[in-house]
Amino acid sequence: MPTHRQAGDTRARIVAATERAIREYGIAGATTKRIAQLAGCSEALLYKHFDGKESLVLAVILEHAPVLAPALKRLGDSAGTGDLAANLTEFAVAAVEFYTNSIPTAAGVMTEPALMAGFREMLAANNLGPHMPIRALGAILWGEQQAGRVRPGADCDALAVLLMGACYQRAHLSAFVDLPDTNEAFADTVVRTLLT
Amino acid sequence: MPTHRQAGDTRARIVAATERAIREYGIAGATTKRIAQLAGCSEALLYKHFDGKESLVLAVILEHAPVLAPALKRLGDSAGTGDLAANLTEFAVAAVEFYTNSIPTAAGVMTEPALMAGFREMLAANNLGPHMPIRALGAILWGEQQAGRVRPGADCDALAVLLMGACYQRAHLSAFVDLPDTNEAFADTVVRTLLT
Repeated sequence: MPTHRQAGDTRARIVAATERAIREYGIAGATTKRIAQLAGCSEALLYKHFDGKESLVLAVILEHAPVLAPALKRLGDSAGTGDLAANLTEFAVAAVEFYTNSIPTAAGVMTEPALMAGFREMLAANNLGPHMPIRALGAILWGEQQAGRVRPGADCDALAVLLMGACYQRAHLSAFVDLPDTNEAFADTVVRTLLT
Repeated sequence: MPTHRQAGDTRARIVAATERAIREYGIAGATTKRIAQLAGCSEALLYKHFDGKESLVLAVILEHAPVLAPALKRLGDSAGTGDLAANLTEFAVAAVEFYTNSIPTAAGVMTEPALMAGFREMLAANNLGPHMPIRALGAILWGEQQAGRVRPGADCDALAVLLMGACYQRAHLSAFVDLPDTNEAFADTVVRTLLT
């Protein structure tokens, strides 16, 4: 019988194989058959750990995709200290990188209507979704406003929506065209415009 | 011999078939064989009009996708007149709808590395790309600033990047989760935050 450790290893191997399959073959080409092959296990074993492609994709996003959480935590931890514009600029650069790395999975799900239907249900049931980090940023900015570091009266949720939106679109634009400025220059400009 | 008119009809039919194939089968499933079938023509005839999938996708984006140009023109035409916040709110709602409708094609291209490579070259060679409408919005806002309707000193290109980014991300977020507010309420909030 496999030990607990071995079962965990298999699961992690399947998640890693899913991420690789999406990146290399696109979401449509990332079949459970191909994922099982890449993970070096049978499809039957794959289905012992995951009930389908939606679960596999969700696992990639939750466990394997480069996560924004550390950058959010750093921003939250530095609340009230240092230069807010500098802190937010550093965060915005991390957000562009996060969104860039999540393109294969996120864009993949968006192009697969059948997968998206199950995926929407799964996100709603677990109170998850790509809107959550935007809310988290908003909460941090409301705190900064209470500390007098964001102009009084500004809608901090709207500031978060604007900043994250600009970072998200920049990541996607870079897939299509060479943008003239660096991510750092971009982040500095949009943060200063938002905070003024 | 086909008349000029008939050749134009065939081309338009192929572009419409490409758009439909991407929407229904995803970009990977939108093969030239399937597109030719949907257009009711041979693959040989398809290749008389288009030299490959990159050209087909570009044609869909340029000619067939719901375009933002009318909303940009309306905004430009109303420069200096009416309430700027109201004009921009109406534009932002149109931008969210535009980005929503372009998801199958745009996300599709992003998930196909081979297609994207040729597509990037084609955009660069023709000075096209998804960054162009953002620049156009920036130009309109600089004009509004000269007319005293945007706060002095604000970086109007950055305002455009922030507004379009928020609209773009909102369109994509809606694919994953049910957002609580309407597009109109969203647009009103972000525009007022940007203009204050």
